[in-house]
Amino acid sequence: MRYGFFDTDADEYVIDRPDVPVSWTNYLGTKNMCTVLSHHGGGYSYYKSSQYGRISRFRQNGVPLDRPGHYVYLRDDADGDYWSASWQPVGKPFVEPGTEPDAEAGPGAAGRWTTRHGMGYTRFRSEYRGIDTEQTVFIPLDDDVELWDVRVTNTSDRVRELTVASYVEFSFHTITIDNQNLQMSLYASGSSYEDGIIEYDFYYEPWTFHYVASSETPSSYDSLRDNFIGSYRTETNPVAIERGEGTNKSATTQNHCGSLQHKVVLQPGETKRLVYLLGYGSRDAAGREMQAKYADVESAEVPAVDREFQRLRDYWHAKQDKLRIRTPHEGMNTMINSWTLLQAETCVVWSRFASFVEVGGRNGLGYRDTAQDVMSVIHSNPTKTRQRIVELLRAQTEQGYGLHLFDPKAFDPDAEKLPDVPSPTIVPTPNVADLIHGLEDTCSDDHLWLVPSVVEYVKETGDLGFLDLEIPFAQGTPATVYEHLRRALEFSAEQVGPNGVALGLRADWNDCLNLGGGETALVTFLHAWAIRAFLEICEHRRAAGDASASDDVERWTAELDRIRGVADRELWDGRWWIRGYTRDGVKIGSAANDEGKIFLEHQAWPVIAGITSQERGETAMDAVRELLGSEYGNHLNWPAFTKVDDTVGFVTRVYPGIKENAAIFSHPNAWPIIAEALLGRGDEAVQFYDAILPYHQNDNIEVRGAEPYAYVQFLYGRDHEWFGKAQNPWLTGTAGWMYTAVTKYVLGVRLALDGLVVDPSIPADWDGFEVRREWREAVYEIEVRNPEHVSHGVASVTVDGVAHEPGTPIPAASAGSTVSVVVTLG
Amino acid sequence: MRYGFFDTDADEYVIDRPDVPVSWTNYLGTKNMCTVLSHHGGGYSYYKSSQYGRISRFRQNGVPLDRPGHYVYLRDDADGDYWSASWQPVGKPFVEPGTEPDAEAGPGAAGRWTTRHGMGYTRFRSEYRGIDTEQTVFIPLDDDVELWDVRVTNTSDRVRELTVASYVEFSFHTITIDNQNLQMSLYASGSSYEDGIIEYDFYYEPWTFHYVASSETPSSYDSLRDNFIGSYRTETNPVAIERGEGTNKSATTQNHCGSLQHKVVLQPGETKRLVYLLGYGSRDAAGREMQAKYADVESAEVPAVDREFQRLRDYWHAKQDKLRIRTPHEGMNTMINSWTLLQAETCVVWSRFASFVEVGGRNGLGYRDTAQDVMSVIHSNPTKTRQRIVELLRAQTEQGYGLHLFDPKAFDPDAEKLPDVPSPTIVPTPNVADLIHGLEDTCSDDHLWLVPSVVEYVKETGDLGFLDLEIPFAQGTPATVYEHLRRALEFSAEQVGPNGVALGLRADWNDCLNLGGGETALVTFLHAWAIRAFLEICEHRRAAGDASASDDVERWTAELDRIRGVADRELWDGRWWIRGYTRDGVKIGSAANDEGKIFLEHQAWPVIAGITSQERGETAMDAVRELLGSEYGNHLNWPAFTKVDDTVGFVTRVYPGIKENAAIFSHPNAWPIIAEALLGRGDEAVQFYDAILPYHQNDNIEVRGAEPYAYVQFLYGRDHEWFGKAQNPWLTGTAGWMYTAVTKYVLGVRLALDGLVVDPSIPADWDGFEVRREWREAVYEIEVRNPEHVSHGVASVTVDGVAHEPGTPIPAASAGSTVSVVVTLG
Repeated sequence: MRYGFFDTDADEYVIDRPDVPVSWTNYLGTKNMCTVLSHHGGGYSYYKSSQYGRISRFRQNGVPLDRPGHYVYLRDDADGDYWSASWQPVGKPFVEPGTEPDAEAGPGAAGRWTTRHGMGYTRFRSEYRGIDTEQTVFIPLDDDVELWDVRVTNTSDRVRELTVASYVEFSFHTITIDNQNLQMSLYASGSSYEDGIIEYDFYYEPWTFHYVASSETPSSYDSLRDNFIGSYRTETNPVAIERGEGTNKSATTQNHCGSLQHKVVLQPGETKRLVYLLGYGSRDAAGREMQAKYADVESAEVPAVDREFQRLRDYWHAKQDKLRIRTPHEGMNTMINSWTLLQAETCVVWSRFASFVEVGGRNGLGYRDTAQDVMSVIHSNPTKTRQRIVELLRAQTEQGYGLHLFDPKAFDPDAEKLPDVPSPTIVPTPNVADLIHGLEDTCSDDHLWLVPSVVEYVKETGDLGFLDLEIPFAQGTPATVYEHLRRALEFSAEQVGPNGVALGLRADWNDCLNLGGGETALVTFLHAWAIRAFLEICEHRRAAGDASASDDVERWTAELDRIRGVADRELWDGRWWIRGYTRDGVKIGSAANDEGKIFLEHQAWPVIAGITSQERGETAMDAVRELLGSEYGNHLNWPAFTKVDDTVGFVTRVYPGIKENAAIFSHPNAWPIIAEALLGRGDEAVQFYDAILPYHQNDNIEVRGAEPYAYVQFLYGRDHEWFGKAQNPWLTGTAGWMYTAVTKYVLGVRLALDGLVVDPSIPADWDGFEVRREWREAVYEIEVRNPEHVSHGVASVTVDGVAHEPGTPIPAASAGSTVSVVVTLG
Repeated sequence: MRYGFFDTDADEYVIDRPDVPVSWTNYLGTKNMCTVLSHHGGGYSYYKSSQYGRISRFRQNGVPLDRPGHYVYLRDDADGDYWSASWQPVGKPFVEPGTEPDAEAGPGAAGRWTTRHGMGYTRFRSEYRGIDTEQTVFIPLDDDVELWDVRVTNTSDRVRELTVASYVEFSFHTITIDNQNLQMSLYASGSSYEDGIIEYDFYYEPWTFHYVASSETPSSYDSLRDNFIGSYRTETNPVAIERGEGTNKSATTQNHCGSLQHKVVLQPGETKRLVYLLGYGSRDAAGREMQAKYADVESAEVPAVDREFQRLRDYWHAKQDKLRIRTPHEGMNTMINSWTLLQAETCVVWSRFASFVEVGGRNGLGYRDTAQDVMSVIHSNPTKTRQRIVELLRAQTEQGYGLHLFDPKAFDPDAEKLPDVPSPTIVPTPNVADLIHGLEDTCSDDHLWLVPSVVEYVKETGDLGFLDLEIPFAQGTPATVYEHLRRALEFSAEQVGPNGVALGLRADWNDCLNLGGGETALVTFLHAWAIRAFLEICEHRRAAGDASASDDVERWTAELDRIRGVADRELWDGRWWIRGYTRDGVKIGSAANDEGKIFLEHQAWPVIAGITSQERGETAMDAVRELLGSEYGNHLNWPAFTKVDDTVGFVTRVYPGIKENAAIFSHPNAWPIIAEALLGRGDEAVQFYDAILPYHQNDNIEVRGAEPYAYVQFLYGRDHEWFGKAQNPWLTGTAGWMYTAVTKYVLGVRLALDGLVVDPSIPADWDGFEVRREWREAVYEIEVRNPEHVSHGVASVTVDGVAHEPGTPIPAASAGSTVSVVVTLG
């Protein structure tokens, strides 16, 4: 069963059958304002924080799903029949994909609804009874406003009198206030109408306003939700649309909305264009200016809405152009060049806390998540990456560990200060000392992810000076970035248990394992991986004559050797690596266990960290494939836990086949791809990639459910009757890691501190592939040829036609140049 | 505009026009389980805590309003037409009240829906196309189960094949989990079906289960919400009802529901009876037993459901019989004898945090609210009252102040301990010391309300020994109840500002005034009132020979004199009492102010506390009437604030005419009634009572909105265009205080420590009234005659025909006796 298709040339996913069983999401916005938007028009906007800065309201886990939204209604004033530009909320009958709707049909006939999710915009199209409507929703690069560019065309052969109306419901700003203590908040919000602009305010926050405006003076309006909808009705049949006229009433109480109604008369073939604006700021401070800017859509040579839409397109094309691949694998091309990049950027720019599932209750940044996410989008978003890295460094304690969940504003000396007025919604400014948790709340892995991320940042940008930048620890102690990284490694070197394996502390990556008090193989391996990244830096500094770096090389080489020994002696189980030890010293993830014999998330790291042999690496990957593998990806553990054992962890209480208990948890699925690539087994690497690739599930939506253009948090495992169903799309580190796995390891285009490396591990049947890579202001046009049909091994390299020693980095070219690299495998 | 009427004989309110603009509420449950239920079937249940013990789900502030609910669907299997026993959720067309629906009409015809809210039960009735359905919802006294007693009658003259189905959506137990972190909770809940019982579980809390069962084996079921409803549908048109068959599927994931479908064939005139059960507990521990208990509804002589319903009726009748009035004022009779008592009991039994507006985010007891609420229902609910008083005493600090919002379990040595398993939903057990806030979070009034409440408890029960009971302070220090009361008074005696007036501390009753740092006349007056109550005790103990009580009489008489002097000198403004001083020493609530010249909440207390003259008392009440009065009750202040002034308080930021800024805030409207009664002005007292009496608004719902049988938190004031609209029904101290004002002061039947006093202040045109009062196991049949048509003043009293000195208490009669009291005014 399919509901849409990839339009790869347009970088769009097209939903041509609107009744998708769940919401398929897109993210709009690049800077301050973000909108989470579904294929059917449901969704919500926020300003900076999805927790404290809500603009439009969302009813989480609701009935019907994912209401309300950012809707355009249409009404035929001749007979009162009405519909919406997006299929929902009115939800008229629709024709099968590929079928033309009848333009001359009467009320209740079937129409056609199509949604195009693009990079930073979504376009809804309806064709209903001879009226063709497009609603293109996007947030311009530099204005805090969401625009709905609406074009209504009369494709019938008679004159049509229509009503066109906007609708959005305003939030009480803060997610908890939307859901709690309504005996206060319902009376703290007000709206007013003047000069075509609905202004919404909330006196708890006298500095915050929102507005709805349009490019033309409306004929009527509603700013009270319940006036617009009417009692015992929903957005499906609002009384103001049924009536074709707003009540023109606002008030200082209750729930508010932005509905502007316009009367439109269209001759046959005529198109009317209207722009609706949903903005942040007051009528006077922002609304009037934006209204004026976007008013002229008909006589201007290039209307502002077109100019800003083109700028947005250019913005995304520029990102995509940083790294474009062309392989024999269409799904890989489509996903890497657009969707996986978009998803990875979304996690970095908008954090992990705003989706149709993640709907509030958390704010700020997860240390572990952010430290991983940044790694994959340094090339496409160096500015945001640098900001996030700095935020992570500021939230690192002088002991070396990171603050597990933190609000970067708390540690930012330049953070905006809110007005000092009594307000129930103000996020209290906590004492920074109170935010610094002790060891009992410290995760054993958080800080380690940051080390390779910083090293990758330096490789991408060439900004070695960044390592000498002074950034205080969370406690305020100043230190260079280099020192931050060293402290991270030192912390883990100290936190070692009786078996020489890393202590679990509060948790590691797998929150549901109770390794507190016990030991974790995963963190031991991550430690090794982070050390190797740091050693690249140390060695580079030593080579540049830095004596203290020399000590660090020695120190960390020794530690790496120690870990290698521990792994060899303590952690190898015969066919795979054990997961760790309980506080009682019992092994977890061993063949000796009855349940949870093998775990996925740590098997790849000995290879990635380079601390094991080719043979053990392959053996462990084979075990993963055999025991954890499936047609939808690798399971997180096997067999599922069915007996409660709190010494193993909360995972033993989770239903089998769900989330951490033997589901296909997506995130760690990327790591075996990297390991297989590093082992030179390109076919196996791409098999792992293909199994979980959403693209391949496009025609299997009756099983998958979720959108086929985004990775999800997990898919139900084979122990669950919903095996293969995908849950919690978008906000997963999977996207970034898959991007990294494919580009740096399968295609093998990765960076050293002093050059570009091309070292692919691909399916042997590929004839080759191409990568266009922008790096430090030069362009590298890389062609990889595979005449011998091998998976791995570079036979020769030429750079601009000149032979280059395989295995040695290609030095950075001068800014503005284009370099032709030809790599021949064999 | 009216939507219903009072059926006083049945103690029911009958809604005969179902499309009331808002939800009209009833509360079911007396012990562990509570259901908040609207006239249209919307609502939710919880077990003990509305915050942590949710059973069925509620979508706060939703569209459409107050979904989902506890629904019975009906479907005509001949044509697929379906409707619901309550008008919503299907919402078919309905006939005008008084019109018969057409029993022979086809699908889409109008039916008739009637709702009867009774004492502890609600009965929905539908008459649609020849099928008459009753759904009576109640919670038996001793079972943790909600019963839906359903009777379906074929009133047409043809055989009918029907489907009858239950529907309820389960909650994730904790209100925040219902609304947040759905990436976890959606996968932590599961359901299963066996032997006709749907069991719902949530592995975060392995000890909590809920179930849905019925009196007959169903033909099909749904336990997954989204299976029952279907995508892009609502409870209005669930796919499982449209289809007439459940999917018979359950799963360990997602949202769950309890829908059991039954196939019913009815001959003309035949009635089918079914009972649905929504229960707390697992299938094995509770479900099977309850299913069996309530299964036999047809052959049993008295089915359990009838027996339990009768027991519930008897329970409420017994409460009502404790005090029944018969006056010439029908509204007063109806409200006092049933609705106001029910509302007051609801506040005491279920606290203030579960309604259609109060939907979570708070737990436990508000000190101020509870200490007031208990006072009015001691006679009808001495057990719960005592429990609440003990809880308040345990949450009083040794310094004397109360903990403003507290969880009684934290201070209860016998509180149930939850299993010690790792669980994200467990309410963390806090360190008790951390719960004891300092002065910065202390309200200046909280503890004072408790003193008269305890004294009233002793008067009602005669349990003087209660004063000597040892109950520890919050810190654990033991003390007698008497000592608790003394500490409360001492605390306020210490917390006095430069003008000799009580310090505002964090706040007093009016949270929106920023009297912190300033002084509050209200608390000074409350202090005097509490002292007078305490003095009654002291004097009684002194009379019994307690020497230390003698010291207390002296000490507190002196303090009362001091307060009288302060009030005289500092607080009289010429026509009314000032409200207090800002921290800068500026008067609030004075004629000298531009805005907020006069406040309502403290004007009555100098009279109630007996510290002012008749003349000043009357002058202040006249000012209240003139400046704050309106046809909907007295405003809280006048003029409304329009200029922000944070030294006055947050009230200056509130929109004019709303809540604390010049709305008709109901709660303090009771106090002037008491003052007028004490001043002997019965006409004025009842005028105040009538202005805000919901009963009088029965035919004015287009203005009022809220139910006419319950008090609300506030009505919009005259500065707001929605003047008279009533908001936030049920959970207000207004109910208890109105009950007290009418019974103890207008009708004047109140208690002394050693007897019953009858001292009415009534409208002069009354010929008299009767009160039946049960007190200490005797019955007092009181007849008040008013031959001279005075408002006040007792000319003579007879007790069982024997003359009794007016003004002296009538001593308690022996248990079991009935005493006839005749009071003649003149």
